[in-house]
Amino acid sequence: MAETKERDTTLALDILHQRFGDRFLTGKSIREQHGHTTTYLENQPPDAVVMAESADDVIWVVQVCAEHRCPVIAFGAGSSLEGQLNAPAGGVCIDMSSMDKILKVDQDDLTVTVQPGVKRIALNEHLRDTGLFFPIDPGADASIGGMASTRASGTNAVRYGTMKDNVLSLKAVMADGREITTASRAKKTSAGYDLTRLMVGAEGTLGVITELTLKLHGLPESIVGGVCNFPDIESVCRATIQTIQYGVPIARIEMLDQVQVRACNAYSKLSLPEKPTLFVEFHGSEASTKEQSEIFNDIIQEFGGSDFQWTANTEDRTKLWQARHDAYWAARALKPGTEAIVTDACVPISQLALCVEETRKDLERHNLLAPIVGHVGDGNFHTAVLVDMANAAELNAAKAFAERLSQRAISMGGTCTGEHGIGQGKKSYLRQELGDTVDFMGMIKSSLDPQNIMNPEKIF
Amino acid sequence: MAETKERDTTLALDILHQRFGDRFLTGKSIREQHGHTTTYLENQPPDAVVMAESADDVIWVVQVCAEHRCPVIAFGAGSSLEGQLNAPAGGVCIDMSSMDKILKVDQDDLTVTVQPGVKRIALNEHLRDTGLFFPIDPGADASIGGMASTRASGTNAVRYGTMKDNVLSLKAVMADGREITTASRAKKTSAGYDLTRLMVGAEGTLGVITELTLKLHGLPESIVGGVCNFPDIESVCRATIQTIQYGVPIARIEMLDQVQVRACNAYSKLSLPEKPTLFVEFHGSEASTKEQSEIFNDIIQEFGGSDFQWTANTEDRTKLWQARHDAYWAARALKPGTEAIVTDACVPISQLALCVEETRKDLERHNLLAPIVGHVGDGNFHTAVLVDMANAAELNAAKAFAERLSQRAISMGGTCTGEHGIGQGKKSYLRQELGDTVDFMGMIKSSLDPQNIMNPEKIF
Repeated sequence: MAETKERDTTLALDILHQRFGDRFLTGKSIREQHGHTTTYLENQPPDAVVMAESADDVIWVVQVCAEHRCPVIAFGAGSSLEGQLNAPAGGVCIDMSSMDKILKVDQDDLTVTVQPGVKRIALNEHLRDTGLFFPIDPGADASIGGMASTRASGTNAVRYGTMKDNVLSLKAVMADGREITTASRAKKTSAGYDLTRLMVGAEGTLGVITELTLKLHGLPESIVGGVCNFPDIESVCRATIQTIQYGVPIARIEMLDQVQVRACNAYSKLSLPEKPTLFVEFHGSEASTKEQSEIFNDIIQEFGGSDFQWTANTEDRTKLWQARHDAYWAARALKPGTEAIVTDACVPISQLALCVEETRKDLERHNLLAPIVGHVGDGNFHTAVLVDMANAAELNAAKAFAERLSQRAISMGGTCTGEHGIGQGKKSYLRQELGDTVDFMGMIKSSLDPQNIMNPEKIF
Repeated sequence: MAETKERDTTLALDILHQRFGDRFLTGKSIREQHGHTTTYLENQPPDAVVMAESADDVIWVVQVCAEHRCPVIAFGAGSSLEGQLNAPAGGVCIDMSSMDKILKVDQDDLTVTVQPGVKRIALNEHLRDTGLFFPIDPGADASIGGMASTRASGTNAVRYGTMKDNVLSLKAVMADGREITTASRAKKTSAGYDLTRLMVGAEGTLGVITELTLKLHGLPESIVGGVCNFPDIESVCRATIQTIQYGVPIARIEMLDQVQVRACNAYSKLSLPEKPTLFVEFHGSEASTKEQSEIFNDIIQEFGGSDFQWTANTEDRTKLWQARHDAYWAARALKPGTEAIVTDACVPISQLALCVEETRKDLERHNLLAPIVGHVGDGNFHTAVLVDMANAAELNAAKAFAERLSQRAISMGGTCTGEHGIGQGKKSYLRQELGDTVDFMGMIKSSLDPQNIMNPEKIF
């Protein structure tokens, strides 16, 4: 184990300043932009920001920081929701946004190798002519490195899996400044511990990701999208469960409750009936998407689904899914001047209807405004509780609600976080959810980062 | 870190004998059956075998062994190929085969919770009436705990993934005797480090798995199987690559070279032409399997594929796939009295044709008899080099061949092991493949098992 040194952030910053010159930034607003900015959590800026241009830059920063026990926080696009980017112990933020090169598309292998600062929309634009795409789509235009670090997923996960399933291999600079490659480029492997899956979801607490090889998927020959509404949330959930159980290989199945529909109508200029609604999408051959749509249509009839409109028109589909991706901003626009406390419960799908139902009642009981959206095919749903931060009673009520929701999900065999991660916001829930297991996570953290310099005070 | 004690296996054995009575076994043949028995690797039996009946038994054994620093090795079905069950440092084998209960089938969630001693065929027999199945099928009728520990896959992996993708959560007794649960039962999670994926593939070096929750899949409405042959191995590989790239959701695509076909004809009473051959299977709706078969048929024409026979008849399909699963025993029957050195290279699919071609030539150049079978949709193939162990020159030639093959796979961006694991047999290759990354695996091992009692001398 490395010798434990005194923390000397000031000295580390001086050395980094000399090395990086113009690429070493300490302006207040720059620093604040590199702390947490997306939810109600307090902004805690780093002491300095280094604009990295290469893995060598990252290695250099981490080596200096290891020498002086200075915290290191990697920054991708700034869209994480649980305070992952905050610097409660100060230190250096490494901004990876200039490391945005797409290094190699291997069409034969259906893989692409990228730097971590590449953003998901740019990646798919780059891939467009290859007939391939990368399916993981959290709402924001996040960076691939950040998406890996939080084990992100999004609307396509029901069919294509999450980041855990779509990162084949990665490079990372570990806490001692060494860069490692976690795995070969083979499609499967039994070569030792699965460090790829350990780094995916580690939220930067074990190392800084410097390169990723991702799995790609063929663009479907046919994409059919649709929207339909239901008399109540339970019917939405039951129709979803039946669709999954029936084995329909649905690509997207997203719930919006009546409040979220109202928000999206206003924000994204839609005119949907203000009722619990499903956005769906089917991928496959012409014959397959037709078959899937027909089966789905039969299923929703059983649960009172109506107004099912479907379209293969790209423009209409894009508008619908852009609205879905903007749901968070639409929610916030419902009550201007407020911040959002975003929850991320995920339960076994058999428990989904009950969990969402109880959550809706809980919100009403406490007079909280919170649209609900759900990746319901995965049993995952979000509420965005809109809070006037000057109203202490409302803030406390919202926090108490979020805690009850996490406990409800955990008590139903689920998790407090399906895709946002633990960060600063959910540390206490992690222990509630997994108990002593967290001790073993802590042992891994201590062994790989004995000085606790990699994104300290996150997860643990 | 725990205090390091002197190893005192004798005392540990005495205590375990008192506790377990009849379930504590030390007979020579029993002990030998619990060491490695499947390949050329030397049998190294444990000092004793405990027949576990519950997680409490496992906790008890591990606590005693931790107290006295006695090695602990878990035994499922004894079918691992890389010496994972050997006891080079002596110690206690925990036989999990009586922990074979299927605890709960959750049809709504498409999951099943099992004890680790359940075997894959028994599991699927149990599931038959539910319309669900568990797809992972290594050749042997392995135990689910063992399959998880080696990150096994098999013929269905091209469509359904490997154990890494199909274990939702597990319980394990860690080296300090505490039992943990790695994750909730939610379909996805971002709750801390992915300990599920860390334990899957850890080959028993971090803990003993005591329970697993697995993902299940709906039995396809239609299953169509087929067999066809090709003029040469390159054509087989190229047809496979094109099928994958075309996005055909093929469920199985298995190559047998001409030598393996000859072996299977003899062992399994088939009458296939002795040419490079593909066994394939399509899963889906009636319309989908028809569409897939037609596309596949078009593709193989381009590569000289012929005699494509396909059938939806269950009996014919079962016979074909039983022959595939018996390929290892068929290979060994080619040259009775020999042992097999089984290789497990896996390369990016773009490199597959070249890698198999060079491997075939290498075998011929060194006059080695080794049928080749391949999970070619994943870029994974096995050779079983048949060796007369009394012939030192042949044994050395076979070992040198296996080393060249691992290096060839690694140099092509692949791995020395796609699904068998590292065990004792591939330790040196792991370092060649991943370099310093192995140091970080070692740090994790040291932190979670500081006394090195969990399956010592494996992987590292």
